[in-house]
Amino acid sequence: MKNLIDFYFDFSSPYSYIANEWVDALAARHGRTVRRHALLLGATFQAAELKSPISYPLKGAYSVRDFARSARFEGVPYEMPSVFPIPTQNAARVFWWLKDTRGEEAAAAWATAGLRAVFARGVALNEVPALRALAAQHGLDADAAETVWNDPAWKQRLKAVNEAAIAAGVFGAPFFFVDGEPFWGNDRKPQIERWLAQGPF
Amino acid sequence: MKNLIDFYFDFSSPYSYIANEWVDALAARHGRTVRRHALLLGATFQAAELKSPISYPLKGAYSVRDFARSARFEGVPYEMPSVFPIPTQNAARVFWWLKDTRGEEAAAAWATAGLRAVFARGVALNEVPALRALAAQHGLDADAAETVWNDPAWKQRLKAVNEAAIAAGVFGAPFFFVDGEPFWGNDRKPQIERWLAQGPF
Repeated sequence: MKNLIDFYFDFSSPYSYIANEWVDALAARHGRTVRRHALLLGATFQAAELKSPISYPLKGAYSVRDFARSARFEGVPYEMPSVFPIPTQNAARVFWWLKDTRGEEAAAAWATAGLRAVFARGVALNEVPALRALAAQHGLDADAAETVWNDPAWKQRLKAVNEAAIAAGVFGAPFFFVDGEPFWGNDRKPQIERWLAQGPF
Repeated sequence: MKNLIDFYFDFSSPYSYIANEWVDALAARHGRTVRRHALLLGATFQAAELKSPISYPLKGAYSVRDFARSARFEGVPYEMPSVFPIPTQNAARVFWWLKDTRGEEAAAAWATAGLRAVFARGVALNEVPALRALAAQHGLDADAAETVWNDPAWKQRLKAVNEAAIAAGVFGAPFFFVDGEPFWGNDRKPQIERWLAQGPF
């Protein structure tokens, strides 16, 4: 749809966290709204024969430095989590539950709460007590949230999202589609901005 | 040295080609000069357990699209070479020969000539006749150039450059060091620009 920006993210992706902080304002400046999609980088990495950037020799140390510097560049608070990367399927299932039952805005608020918890406060969202606490702080029923992330139906929902993303060419995060054009990475912000302002280039 | 920008590139790297087109003007605006280093991505990829981006499923198709779009974004002419990537050790050895015997400016001119040949005109610089022709067009003695790229001393020079780059943390190209700070990728231009304008951030 012409007035949308599709934004794929993983709750354990530092560059997704940074992009999540600017994408709504950028979209709004150009009369667009953001449609978020929580996915699992583990699935897209496997499809693309990739790993987390921190898993590679040399690139790993650079990436840790670049995560923090890129956050500073955007003026976004950042703390490297002590355990990284973490499995994020539970947080992602809650995202899809909120999106499907309460709508885009509720899901977006959860995305922002989760990403900020991980990268501004170092919360280990993979741990059940931490995720329950975040849900409760966020005004959700922690028991209901836990039921969701253990529910085969929501597990299947997330699995289908991963598969559809891969089929659309998504191999990392953040990943954007604007008018069908794919943009990968927080650092494609200037290109997305030009596209929104001037159209295809 | 305070007034330098170190710029590592490979003659077969599209993002290096694009960066090579803006780096001198950016440096000059901030009272800096560029020190170029031709290297072989094959060596840094091996050290970092990486491959060319086009070798990965999903990422490959995106990268080909992004090379051309990133060139358009910078206003740089671009043609995807029909054979890619290509081995570039001969062009790189000529670079180091020029740098060590005639200085930075002569080497920079060769870097630009070679990168433009590959990515603006689709020249297969890995082929001896094409590289000899480029050398001649560039005002070099083609026989002398060919002697250089077959000379064990210049082979060793390039090998030492690759090893020193890897030891310094270089795992891809373009790769920059500004005041010791590492920046990887054509897309780090805005961060480099801020660093040059304001200092560390």
